Amino acid sequence: MIVVMKKGATREEIQHMIERVEQLGLKSHPIYGTERTVIAAIGEKRSDHRQSLESGPGVAEVVPILAPYKVASREVKPEPTVIRVGGFTVGDAQIGMIAGPCSVESEEQTLTTARAIKAAGATALRGGAFKPRTSPYSFQGMKEDGLKILATARAETGLPIVTEVMSENDVKLVGRYADILQIGARNMQNYRLLEAVGAEGKPVLLKRGPSATLDELLLAAEYILDAGNPNVMLCERGIRTFETHTRFSLTLASVPYLHDRTHLPVVVDPSHGTGHTVLVARMAAASIAAGADALIIEVHPDPETALSDGYQSLTFKQFAELMTLCRKVAVAMDRVM
Amino acid sequence: MIVVMKKGATREEIQHMIERVEQLGLKSHPIYGTERTVIAAIGEKRSDHRQSLESGPGVAEVVPILAPYKVASREVKPEPTVIRVGGFTVGDAQIGMIAGPCSVESEEQTLTTARAIKAAGATALRGGAFKPRTSPYSFQGMKEDGLKILATARAETGLPIVTEVMSENDVKLVGRYADILQIGARNMQNYRLLEAVGAEGKPVLLKRGPSATLDELLLAAEYILDAGNPNVMLCERGIRTFETHTRFSLTLASVPYLHDRTHLPVVVDPSHGTGHTVLVARMAAASIAAGADALIIEVHPDPETALSDGYQSLTFKQFAELMTLCRKVAVAMDRVM
Amino acid sequence: MIVVMKKGATREEIQHMIERVEQLGLKSHPIYGTERTVIAAIGEKRSDHRQSLESGPGVAEVVPILAPYKVASREVKPEPTVIRVGGFTVGDAQIGMIAGPCSVESEEQTLTTARAIKAAGATALRGGAFKPRTSPYSFQGMKEDGLKILATARAETGLPIVTEVMSENDVKLVGRYADILQIGARNMQNYRLLEAVGAEGKPVLLKRGPSATLDELLLAAEYILDAGNPNVMLCERGIRTFETHTRFSLTLASVPYLHDRTHLPVVVDPSHGTGHTVLVARMAAASIAAGADALIIEVHPDPETALSDGYQSLTFKQFAELMTLCRKVAVAMDRVM
Amino acid sequence: MIVVMKKGATREEIQHMIERVEQLGLKSHPIYGTERTVIAAIGEKRSDHRQSLESGPGVAEVVPILAPYKVASREVKPEPTVIRVGGFTVGDAQIGMIAGPCSVESEEQTLTTARAIKAAGATALRGGAFKPRTSPYSFQGMKEDGLKILATARAETGLPIVTEVMSENDVKLVGRYADILQIGARNMQNYRLLEAVGAEGKPVLLKRGPSATLDELLLAAEYILDAGNPNVMLCERGIRTFETHTRFSLTLASVPYLHDRTHLPVVVDPSHGTGHTVLVARMAAASIAAGADALIIEVHPDPETALSDGYQSLTFKQFAELMTLCRKVAVAMDRVM
Repeated sequence: MIVVMKKGATREEIQHMIERVEQLGLKSHPIYGTERTVIAAIGEKRSDHRQSLESGPGVAEVVPILAPYKVASREVKPEPTVIRVGGFTVGDAQIGMIAGPCSVESEEQTLTTARAIKAAGATALRGGAFKPRTSPYSFQGMKEDGLKILATARAETGLPIVTEVMSENDVKLVGRYADILQIGARNMQNYRLLEAVGAEGKPVLLKRGPSATLDELLLAAEYILDAGNPNVMLCERGIRTFETHTRFSLTLASVPYLHDRTHLPVVVDPSHGTGHTVLVARMAAASIAAGADALIIEVHPDPETALSDGYQSLTFKQFAELMTLCRKVAVAMDRVM
Repeated sequence: MIVVMKKGATREEIQHMIERVEQLGLKSHPIYGTERTVIAAIGEKRSDHRQSLESGPGVAEVVPILAPYKVASREVKPEPTVIRVGGFTVGDAQIGMIAGPCSVESEEQTLTTARAIKAAGATALRGGAFKPRTSPYSFQGMKEDGLKILATARAETGLPIVTEVMSENDVKLVGRYADILQIGARNMQNYRLLEAVGAEGKPVLLKRGPSATLDELLLAAEYILDAGNPNVMLCERGIRTFETHTRFSLTLASVPYLHDRTHLPVVVDPSHGTGHTVLVARMAAASIAAGADALIIEVHPDPETALSDGYQSLTFKQFAELMTLCRKVAVAMDRVM
Repeated sequence: MIVVMKKGATREEIQHMIERVEQLGLKSHPIYGTERTVIAAIGEKRSDHRQSLESGPGVAEVVPILAPYKVASREVKPEPTVIRVGGFTVGDAQIGMIAGPCSVESEEQTLTTARAIKAAGATALRGGAFKPRTSPYSFQGMKEDGLKILATARAETGLPIVTEVMSENDVKLVGRYADILQIGARNMQNYRLLEAVGAEGKPVLLKRGPSATLDELLLAAEYILDAGNPNVMLCERGIRTFETHTRFSLTLASVPYLHDRTHLPVVVDPSHGTGHTVLVARMAAASIAAGADALIIEVHPDPETALSDGYQSLTFKQFAELMTLCRKVAVAMDRVM
Repeated sequence: MIVVMKKGATREEIQHMIERVEQLGLKSHPIYGTERTVIAAIGEKRSDHRQSLESGPGVAEVVPILAPYKVASREVKPEPTVIRVGGFTVGDAQIGMIAGPCSVESEEQTLTTARAIKAAGATALRGGAFKPRTSPYSFQGMKEDGLKILATARAETGLPIVTEVMSENDVKLVGRYADILQIGARNMQNYRLLEAVGAEGKPVLLKRGPSATLDELLLAAEYILDAGNPNVMLCERGIRTFETHTRFSLTLASVPYLHDRTHLPVVVDPSHGTGHTVLVARMAAASIAAGADALIIEVHPDPETALSDGYQSLTFKQFAELMTLCRKVAVAMDRVM
């Protein structure tokens, strides 16, 4: 890291900071510029030294040079991580398609949907059994009954199951039914939960928090990787900005950016990313053009009566059209779908 | 709520939506304007009907009229909620002052700090034993050993303890030592944790998530209130914006806004809200002028060697000066400190 | 619009607001709900009545129902606006490609670039002669000499010229040389300038301000349309958010959103929208998949020595590759490029 | 600045960048770290070299060390700039109070307001004659007639006049009537206008754009200072964030931050910063506690009928109460008001 001293920093302050850097086990390398002195600290190991050095006397700021994540970094592992669960693949030329209802509401609703998305070409089934809801008065999910319905749908269609786990205490239970454990955006920095899914071992779909930087997303992944689970997919699902015409702002440049920095596959969720049915198909196509390794899409037999997220769910017909469009773009990008 | 139809909505679409509204148990009230039709739905009970109605045919948008929270609302309980724990009071003329280190690092560090802040006039001691850290490689806290140190500091100084609980599984443990349970910004929407502290019963300091709207903060409080715990303090600690000169953007207008909408007391955290030692005292004074019911401030015997948040921690001398300044502003605001 | 009264609003306050609504020439329509009264005001004409009504006694808030723009609205003109300048077309199946250097630096630099992009398939040449620069110490452009160079490039290649005009006083001058007048993001709400390009008559490329909502962008277009110039292209170029890994956040959902609301064509600028050469091609492809009617891309013979925006400029080779990729995606989207 | 090379950068790439740095007239200082090489470039003069170096081969990023502004910097001029116009002072212990209507609507409205704010203790009169309005259909101001009314109000009350100038072509006209020229938030980066008010010479009140960083604000000031006008006041008026309960987010930490970095006085506008009458007084008090050198407040004889900004304007009574509150806080801060 680089310790930038203030313009008027005294010789004593500079000397003090050099000593502080050395005390931290780093090699100091002061550079006396025309206007200010900076001290390069060599040997940094992604620690938090920056935090304390910044309060040193005469220090203007401390600039980190290394990315704070390690195991997730492409510098450490250049080849992409490929995750395969049944017919669902993510991380190579094949593009994964996860679809299904926001919430599991009944066996009929879930099975009908599973059949329809399978027919249209989806490779995994999503469905919420434990639902994190902004309001305590909203439908909170069918819990284990919902998981059982999902398992039934898998038995019939062969589609692997992606479902959210909200609590470290539910990881074992959800892991008994699910093929891929989803960490929702609200829980991206619920570290006990990250450690628990890291220990469980099943592939994890980690959603970006709506105000998380990409570094923070990668550090959240690092918690899971560090717990011994290498199968993490990162999911861009939109960030919170001043724009209110869409539910979140889907910043697709994070797809090529993440591909540049990490070997982990990148999934995009255009349903939450836009929050409006009419915008989903176009943004799904755009996600694939941006290089997404998989998509996750909300589909419901009758969005108008859905217990959650009706405004962003597609009908079966809309989903089939989306698949047709996405496949054409996938071909243009030399991908398979 | 108000269902706004598109300009070209057909008679059938309008009729369909009127029926949908009635099916939801609401009374429909269509208004035929010069350019479009809107349907007022009367009898709404803060449910999620909006979500599904928005996907109805010919619907442009659905505008909610009622605030989504209930028990937290000042309309339901006009008089302010006052919380008292030992000498710490929040919610009336008395302004609370919570101070202490970001992390409990040792008994000596904590006791020295507790004595210094008590001498300067603080009314509660903060200190982290379970630390949610962005990176898995950062110091994660002393856990129960840290709690014991906090208890020792309370025994000596009489200051009640405010400390964070990160997991529903730790609520009982932390509750044995702490007087006030802190829910950190990252866990504001960790609903199982909110329910657990709601059931535990001790007063809760609920921090606003960095991208949470004030409605979402109030709904998170509603989870705790709904679980039977009426003693919730809301804490503004800055939101994430494009501005990078400060760690977060401390939007103090949320203090009078929240006072207008809720009876719950409002605490401000200018340490996290700014992220720079030199900005803390001024923003502490500004918080009091904005009407804050309490402040929470990071103080460390030697910020330069702190294991976390050194760049925003005050020395004992800086904290004493902050107290002097804040007291003068408190007097100007007819408050006691 | 809908005037929402507070829960405790008195009969007198409600009556007062009904009278205020009627004084504004609107028809009032009060609805007495279970918890509050709302007053629908019918006959609204996109005026500012909302602003003053909101300060009325007992009023909680005023919710507008109509979009604030009119001439730009697809409700007023359902068929898309097509703009043709020489071989450049925008608004129909043909996708326009505007490319060229950030700044005109010399005749050789500009001509070489014009030839290269033409060979690769671009349909218009961009190049800045008047440069709005954040710092007064940065290169400010070649001004009229730059315009002359652009005209020379057009004479040789036949490519129409897109160049920025920064001041109402330069509109005539720039209009003598340019085919399309660009309003930069910083000037999106420079109303005298908008009126001036509205009066000049040449097609206008209007860039979205980095914190402008889409309604504000459409209202800025409305200034130009209202001045009598129907040929306005809207340009999404990224918004400012907390994410710092990209220069701006390119929120492509604005493309289908704008297509839904307005008949004006939508251009995307992935160069400014990302700020990093390595991200441009992917986001160009994504823009086309999202439905963009044209792209605008920065290209430079030697980005490393560019006087401005080197970090986001493509080499000729990179641009040719981008064209190949974009054409494939255009075909997938049933567009021509 | 610091050129950070990628981990795998070759010896040739590093050598190439060292040469590039030297070609720019800077002294290069390579540091070979354990994981990567960084090249410190010494002698930097706030130019744009960063932009082109970032596209060099093997470069990961370029980190600037110096602030990009110069004349505005406190490092260049440590003592605060004090501006005095009649009885209005800003920059020393005295706190200025600018008040008045959003728009000049009539002589009676303006004079009544001028008398009322003068009686309550305001030291300058604000009022818009040229109004930048988001919609072309909104009231655009009384123009020169409005300026004449302001001059009449000054003649009667002695209050200096603060009014906005929207166009470089109006600078002379507005300068004939006004004492302080206001640059609105939308025009913060209208560089021709900045240069024009720089040349005119009257004190300038420069409002921060809603998505401008503080560096960009200081660079906009630098345009005016560089044109020879040293009398610039910076005005914080809120930034655009995801929070919608307030019109903008008033981030008061910019006051102490700017005081740390620049010698220019800092004004706060809690009217635009909140957008709601009920929040203005508290945020005015908070602004003073944060260290503001002056406030600017919207006041109207009858906000409910105001032609603009009624929802955030205070009545005379509310303004008098605000003054009483602010004076008490000013005393607590050892300031005079």
